Amino acid sequence: MTPERGFPKAEFEQRLAVVQAAMATDDIDVLLLTQEHDIRYITGFMTPFWQSPTRPWFVVVPKSGLPKAVIPTIGREVMKRCFTDAVHCFAAPSNTDDGIALLGRVIADCAGPTPVLGMMIGAETKLMMPLMDMEVLIDAIGQPELVDATEILRSARMVKSPLEIAKLRHICGLASDVFNGMPEWVHIGQSLRSIFSEFKINALRSGIDDVSYLVGNAGQGGYDDIISPPGEDPIQSGDVLMLDTGCLWDGYFCDFDRNYGFGDVSGEALDAYELLWQATEDAITGLKPGMTSADLFGIMQSRLGATDDDVGRYGHGLGIQLTEPPSHIGWDDTVLTENMVLTLEPSLALSGGKMMVHEENILLTADGAELLSKRAAPQLPIIK
Amino acid sequence: MTPERGFPKAEFEQRLAVVQAAMATDDIDVLLLTQEHDIRYITGFMTPFWQSPTRPWFVVVPKSGLPKAVIPTIGREVMKRCFTDAVHCFAAPSNTDDGIALLGRVIADCAGPTPVLGMMIGAETKLMMPLMDMEVLIDAIGQPELVDATEILRSARMVKSPLEIAKLRHICGLASDVFNGMPEWVHIGQSLRSIFSEFKINALRSGIDDVSYLVGNAGQGGYDDIISPPGEDPIQSGDVLMLDTGCLWDGYFCDFDRNYGFGDVSGEALDAYELLWQATEDAITGLKPGMTSADLFGIMQSRLGATDDDVGRYGHGLGIQLTEPPSHIGWDDTVLTENMVLTLEPSLALSGGKMMVHEENILLTADGAELLSKRAAPQLPIIK
Repeated sequence: MTPERGFPKAEFEQRLAVVQAAMATDDIDVLLLTQEHDIRYITGFMTPFWQSPTRPWFVVVPKSGLPKAVIPTIGREVMKRCFTDAVHCFAAPSNTDDGIALLGRVIADCAGPTPVLGMMIGAETKLMMPLMDMEVLIDAIGQPELVDATEILRSARMVKSPLEIAKLRHICGLASDVFNGMPEWVHIGQSLRSIFSEFKINALRSGIDDVSYLVGNAGQGGYDDIISPPGEDPIQSGDVLMLDTGCLWDGYFCDFDRNYGFGDVSGEALDAYELLWQATEDAITGLKPGMTSADLFGIMQSRLGATDDDVGRYGHGLGIQLTEPPSHIGWDDTVLTENMVLTLEPSLALSGGKMMVHEENILLTADGAELLSKRAAPQLPIIK
Repeated sequence: MTPERGFPKAEFEQRLAVVQAAMATDDIDVLLLTQEHDIRYITGFMTPFWQSPTRPWFVVVPKSGLPKAVIPTIGREVMKRCFTDAVHCFAAPSNTDDGIALLGRVIADCAGPTPVLGMMIGAETKLMMPLMDMEVLIDAIGQPELVDATEILRSARMVKSPLEIAKLRHICGLASDVFNGMPEWVHIGQSLRSIFSEFKINALRSGIDDVSYLVGNAGQGGYDDIISPPGEDPIQSGDVLMLDTGCLWDGYFCDFDRNYGFGDVSGEALDAYELLWQATEDAITGLKPGMTSADLFGIMQSRLGATDDDVGRYGHGLGIQLTEPPSHIGWDDTVLTENMVLTLEPSLALSGGKMMVHEENILLTADGAELLSKRAAPQLPIIK
């Protein structure tokens, strides 16, 4: 059943309560957000206009009370419908001030002079405003202490609510069906570019909002890399094709892949597929709440042995972003808890510089992993 | 005719020569790039993997010699095929160092200790790495002087090469045909969400690589805003529908919109459409090389009068990004020269908080504007 779009106000109230409690613990007076996913998480502000790179967007979270938006005028009507109690607008683009003076005043109104300012400045963050404007802002609000607030939103966002899980389950189901239909239309002789296009069309037809992310590759007995743009070379007998997609429904991502073999595929590739499938199966059956990401990585590595590939990890968190913390890797000691949504993504280096990857999406429940993607076949599906 | 994909090496040599000449003028020892479009412009590195937000990517441009990539291992194979003479890779994600130590060494090797470091830190830029890592980097390379290099790439990228123009012409033509086919399938009773989906499917079928950007709205006699996500409300008689798309072909964007009326549309909306069309026509016929963006804005404003809408400008540059400098607005004195590709995008505020926009894409030649989009009809097309 298709979930409802959007979230009730109570969802945002709960998110805000968690974030403000963490701000209090960290003695942060005011939190400044510039990234789309953070702003959307806190306010519900969703627009395809984020693709337009000209104008910066800001949301200010005070110690108590509702978030305040400081945004270009073009966003006023949409932001007014979001979880804020003030929508401050500036004329943009501007050659003198893209909202910084206004932003400084809003921060000062919330937190007084020289506040402790929290921002997302740690791992996996970007500063979605000009660095020069950041310097102007810091001067404007009296050289505040700048504190890394990355962990606050990271922790809050990592555990999903029931409504978020419903959206993630829905998009994973839709994308699974698109993958499962592939053998009906993909064929030897077809180019990767045509396959990408056909996949996107089928995804849109199935009710997916957008195919924001689609990577893939194909090659004899494995692929050279997993991030090339698609080319014109026709699929040949012996090729292994992999498509990895981040499809969106109501702003929530799936992120998993599927492999297909064509004609006569090398024994090495068939074996690698089974090994990757089995490593994923080990993770699905072995994962329990309380384990760490490193433990989960260890489960998969036990099956695969030490492999030297380029991906760097065996999966990650999933939600508003295609990739979210944690990372399933030896150093990540994040404790995995109920209601986290995760990818399992083991990879293998093969001979001749080839590689293969496999990926599923799961929800961690009290009992262990529940598949959100419809499980891939245990042997490489062959298209003749 | 479909242009060739990619660029020959000579194209990148020319771009690099222009950038390095500007670096010399500004006494910049080394340029550090973190944004996708800058990295792609200089090296040709193109991958849908940019949508994956975990890992940072760096390119270092020395005073002389080829660019050096400092990137996550996952990108090695693709970057090796690009315009660089060194691909330095780091294991990512990492909990201790996402490439900063390596980046520091590469910068020091290029430019010695305490160089003058150019970065894109001005208007319309983002810092696509954690701000905390930026501080670590600055320490690692001996507290260099940080210089704003925004203008260097802005100037270089604003004037398009013949091969870039061919790609832009191609995508504008493809998207025009998708729009021109709309009256055959769009109808009263259809939801905006269904219209968005159908538009994307038709675009993909036509040979467009991706519909990265699609915004639009519909309402009685005009729309409330132009950035809302699409909803389920059915189109009614009296509605004006606007779709604005940034479609991609080989990494180059179109950016224009089309309006359609349904059934009996208000006289105000019909008049507004004609006025916007005429303002665009004035710009197309009046624009000559040597005018500024402010002059171009003035041409359109003369037709429209002073209007108080929320868009903030009447068009902008176009290329690797959906929106590039300059901005057609009163303060932008950028001189418009041959081989710039621009949007013309006048907008009008109507009664009752409604608005309308219209947009075309042009190439500026020695003789004036040449349309890249196929010109919209002078009267609002009505779908019964």
